[in-house]
Amino acid sequence: MAQQSNHSFAIIGTGALGGYYGGLLAKSELDVHFLARSDYQTIRQQGLQVDSIRGDFVVKPAQAYASVADMPACDIVIVALKSTQNHLLGKLLPPLLKNDSVVLVLQNGLHVEAASELIAGRGRVMGGCCFLCSNKIGPGHIRHLDYGHIAMGAYLGEDGDSPIVPIAIQQGIHQDFVNAGIRVELVDQLQYSRWKKLMWNIPFNGLSVVMNSSTNLVMNSPSARQLAIDLMYETQAAAKACGIAIDDKEIDQMISYTDSMVPYDSSMRLDFLAGRSMEIDAIVGRPLREAIRFGYIPKKIEMLYQQLSFLQK
Amino acid sequence: MAQQSNHSFAIIGTGALGGYYGGLLAKSELDVHFLARSDYQTIRQQGLQVDSIRGDFVVKPAQAYASVADMPACDIVIVALKSTQNHLLGKLLPPLLKNDSVVLVLQNGLHVEAASELIAGRGRVMGGCCFLCSNKIGPGHIRHLDYGHIAMGAYLGEDGDSPIVPIAIQQGIHQDFVNAGIRVELVDQLQYSRWKKLMWNIPFNGLSVVMNSSTNLVMNSPSARQLAIDLMYETQAAAKACGIAIDDKEIDQMISYTDSMVPYDSSMRLDFLAGRSMEIDAIVGRPLREAIRFGYIPKKIEMLYQQLSFLQK
Repeated sequence: MAQQSNHSFAIIGTGALGGYYGGLLAKSELDVHFLARSDYQTIRQQGLQVDSIRGDFVVKPAQAYASVADMPACDIVIVALKSTQNHLLGKLLPPLLKNDSVVLVLQNGLHVEAASELIAGRGRVMGGCCFLCSNKIGPGHIRHLDYGHIAMGAYLGEDGDSPIVPIAIQQGIHQDFVNAGIRVELVDQLQYSRWKKLMWNIPFNGLSVVMNSSTNLVMNSPSARQLAIDLMYETQAAAKACGIAIDDKEIDQMISYTDSMVPYDSSMRLDFLAGRSMEIDAIVGRPLREAIRFGYIPKKIEMLYQQLSFLQK
Repeated sequence: MAQQSNHSFAIIGTGALGGYYGGLLAKSELDVHFLARSDYQTIRQQGLQVDSIRGDFVVKPAQAYASVADMPACDIVIVALKSTQNHLLGKLLPPLLKNDSVVLVLQNGLHVEAASELIAGRGRVMGGCCFLCSNKIGPGHIRHLDYGHIAMGAYLGEDGDSPIVPIAIQQGIHQDFVNAGIRVELVDQLQYSRWKKLMWNIPFNGLSVVMNSSTNLVMNSPSARQLAIDLMYETQAAAKACGIAIDDKEIDQMISYTDSMVPYDSSMRLDFLAGRSMEIDAIVGRPLREAIRFGYIPKKIEMLYQQLSFLQK
């Protein structure tokens, strides 16, 4: 194992995702500070509890806080809120930033890093696509069900021309994650990873809400299955319009993979059923607008967006 | 009033539509025979009762039958079933046809007359677009709530090359309806009327089911309203591909008209909520395939069709 770094981490949002990855980082004896809002007392008293298919553990003592005002500025600030909360970053991020802090945005969707870049500055932001199946099942209590892989890389800004986070810093953060036992990959083209994930998220998050059904019902209906495939190809074409080429075989693999999944409720469907805000803009609206900006109108994605917006009201 | 004809009429399907128009024709002392299946005893004993905003009436005695085997062949056979029942026409139509009978198909959708033409022969079929708001509220009991206008004309076949029903015969049928107090218009281009009605039926029947909402909810949501408008323009473009030009101002009028409607559940939504077959093929599938046949793929209509097919299962 490589030498342990002395990086300090702030975790904005100690939920299913932030609690899991932050918990693993803290378990590997990094200096991790959790913004936990209403859960902070529980976490301070009982620790942060992670029940994981890879082994349960408790982080205790855990440095948890109700407010960013009480937290130290950190080397690496991980944004682990839902993207629907990004309007809060203007208040949450600044107190946690040092001159050379890096912000790592672990959210779904396209250009979800833009809000952080606006605050932290260009060349200071990374993004990560997480393939994680976990839930928060109680205060300071996370259940990790499956997966956990992250593809992370430098965010180059909305126009693709921001300076990159220095490679040595990216590698340092990558190494911290590796040391914590997280399967992580450092990617050159974050936008390729983002669009590839959208090829699944747009059809299956979107249709699970609009068609009110789990993935297996969609896949087992010939007409809904074809619609999901049409949406994948439109996402591929949207990515291409934005300069990102994704091979057809990725679509074939994603279909086989989805066929083999157990019946699954997407995060967007869980949010919808619970009456919470859905990540419609990050996952569908922003990719749609990007495609249109580059001259391609993906009609079925547009219709999906219109339907989701109707249902969100 | 013009002289009363001696036409005989058979009404296939004595429901909300067949009961209303057939009732008015019988009230005007034409010779009308009703296929009424399970309701025929009630109708024979108590008459056919029509509660109408234009005045209630009872047709008594009424000539009602449980089976076409008991009915006489008639000059004019009105098909007033839902188009989802058109597979029954092979058995229902032949016993009712004379050598010179004309079949008038009063159904929603595109090329719903094709099944009748196959049986009755080319040049023997007319179609009618009905703008009618009525329900069957009990055996032999119809409630007419609003409207009632019909645009009828000769059906020219799937390739538009069938001979037309002789004008004198069309005018005779038209006159029978006029004499019965029905607002009716004889049109040169039935397909124009069909496509114009589809410009409303595709978005509002389709979205009312897929979005699980009445017309006013669709119209009051900016995103769903825009989707409805997009579907109208796609229908207009589909019609154009099929050689039918519909002016933009028809769309504007239809939007104003829909804005002014009371909250309304479309017939497709009522069918869906009641667990009955929906007229998906006649109203969405067939127009979609016609457009594709002529080289235009209306993507949002295609997606609507995929979603409806999924929900029909």
